[in-house]
Amino acid sequence: MMAKQTVCFTRPPSIVAAASIVGPKEGEGPLAAYFDKVEPDMLLGTDTWEQAESALVQETIALAVEKSGVKMDAINYIFSGDLLNQSSGSSFGVRAHKRPFFGLYGACSAVGEGMILGAMLLDGGFAQHIVANASSHFCSAEKTFRFPVELGTQRPPTASWTVTGDGAVVMAAEGEGPYITAATTGIITDLGVTDATNMGAAMAPAAAAVIAAHLADRNITADYYDAIITGDLGYIGADLLYTLMDEAGHDLRARHQDCGLLIYDREKQDVHAGGSGCGCAAVTFASYLLPKLRKKEIKRLLLVPTGALHNVASVQQGETIPAIAHAVAIENEIPKEGKS
Amino acid sequence: MMAKQTVCFTRPPSIVAAASIVGPKEGEGPLAAYFDKVEPDMLLGTDTWEQAESALVQETIALAVEKSGVKMDAINYIFSGDLLNQSSGSSFGVRAHKRPFFGLYGACSAVGEGMILGAMLLDGGFAQHIVANASSHFCSAEKTFRFPVELGTQRPPTASWTVTGDGAVVMAAEGEGPYITAATTGIITDLGVTDATNMGAAMAPAAAAVIAAHLADRNITADYYDAIITGDLGYIGADLLYTLMDEAGHDLRARHQDCGLLIYDREKQDVHAGGSGCGCAAVTFASYLLPKLRKKEIKRLLLVPTGALHNVASVQQGETIPAIAHAVAIENEIPKEGKS
Repeated sequence: MMAKQTVCFTRPPSIVAAASIVGPKEGEGPLAAYFDKVEPDMLLGTDTWEQAESALVQETIALAVEKSGVKMDAINYIFSGDLLNQSSGSSFGVRAHKRPFFGLYGACSAVGEGMILGAMLLDGGFAQHIVANASSHFCSAEKTFRFPVELGTQRPPTASWTVTGDGAVVMAAEGEGPYITAATTGIITDLGVTDATNMGAAMAPAAAAVIAAHLADRNITADYYDAIITGDLGYIGADLLYTLMDEAGHDLRARHQDCGLLIYDREKQDVHAGGSGCGCAAVTFASYLLPKLRKKEIKRLLLVPTGALHNVASVQQGETIPAIAHAVAIENEIPKEGKS
Repeated sequence: MMAKQTVCFTRPPSIVAAASIVGPKEGEGPLAAYFDKVEPDMLLGTDTWEQAESALVQETIALAVEKSGVKMDAINYIFSGDLLNQSSGSSFGVRAHKRPFFGLYGACSAVGEGMILGAMLLDGGFAQHIVANASSHFCSAEKTFRFPVELGTQRPPTASWTVTGDGAVVMAAEGEGPYITAATTGIITDLGVTDATNMGAAMAPAAAAVIAAHLADRNITADYYDAIITGDLGYIGADLLYTLMDEAGHDLRARHQDCGLLIYDREKQDVHAGGSGCGCAAVTFASYLLPKLRKKEIKRLLLVPTGALHNVASVQQGETIPAIAHAVAIENEIPKEGKS
């Protein structure tokens, strides 16, 4: 029998704090007022884009832990992922914190991957406090995947804009809601998209698959959630998600939003298809969605960070773009036993 | 109070099977007879080094799962890591297996990172069967970190030789020994080494730190273990490890070996400081160490895969090399309650 993809937590971990630090463009967008800090300088006072991204990682994790009231020494594990080669944004950013470290690579799904693994370790009794972190930086990502920004290369309308920002989430074995109540880990999905400037199309099938698996495994319909929020599908990917979910018998339109569409004003900010990058879902959750959960404006959230798992060599070699998405159920109240 | 780094498992997961597939050079080394398969062709019939590495990943995971007697559909999670940009060896290699996937980046410590997380998920009741996998490929690694092999660039004597190979470990919540009984997750350690052709020196302090933390947390001395096996320190790193551990009051010489020194014959194979790469610890454990545990030639093993967390940009920008190592205790018998 095929194993179920979804875990429902017995002692759902609490999300005790989160922090977000972003770059100047995100600070001019619709979520400006929600971020903990807007950096005015894309270099954060460092010499390189890569050092700037690691500075974002280091500073945001420190801020999230400070906000949680937990001492850094009491953080059992830090999970972190980013887009740079060999996930260097995380390694160099986490270094100063001197805590046990699990480096992740899940592209822009990283914060979801860290929250799922973190929740399992907390519920399993292996930790009291865990940080899940993810970062991206527009200029370091352009340099890694496309062209140095200094070239001023033109971008197609299907392309997304990599968020400059870091989001860090502090989870605890015990605490008040919201809680991580269930999680569905993604399976790599690849429907054959080869256009690396249309990642929304590559990732939408992965998001659709994990949402459908989550709903089936919990035996619920989409209206169980007040909000189903994907990571960075953008407007093309979101549209494709609706089509795919329609075919699976779920109409997501009334309760879906995408972090890549929330974080920028597409009319005014010239971001083409929307925001993307590991930081996109991470900062939108930390700054905007988590407070809505605390204020009970959202009672049940399904957060679905999405990632495209290609690299420069794979695209040059004509490979298709594998994608993954993870679904994290975050609820203000712990569902009754047997409910799911 | 600073949280302990070590977890001792309540229901230690069983290692039910493992597989290793390597390249031609490894097939000429001292462990030749132990590998499941030696590929005669560095390209494995593909067109590129990257595709060859993904083919290694895909094939070795399939073989390990087949050897375990578990159906692929019943594998709850696959953890995998490699050295390529955006961990593409894993993403493209795991894709065909269609199982929930956690991508890791821990450089050459990846198999240890996967075994620790996998053991926590199994002991925590979140899974019945998990694969921890890690791969490297000499030519794809040279291209990623140094120069295309076609250039014939000279290498300094401190440099190591990246293993072409993949090792996959299948762990289960229930089964016979050997068991994963305890695990210590590494903290990033950086003593300021900047020479990317001397990774043994960069990684030895991380190995020393995690071994010392493991022994202290379990309140045991090094002679608790029959064997303490590091991942890929090579002969320079191993020597430095002894010095550092001497200072910490532990003489490791009688029970230490390094996978990078086991896998090649340094006299005959021109590998300079020894073997390295994510595949080094993974294939040496899967092929050589696990059978020794099964035959009780080793009863208690501390496996310490080591990773250097730099990338090309960080070295070019003058950054030092952060390193990490994880310690995984693998024992034939489950220690009595309270023993550790």
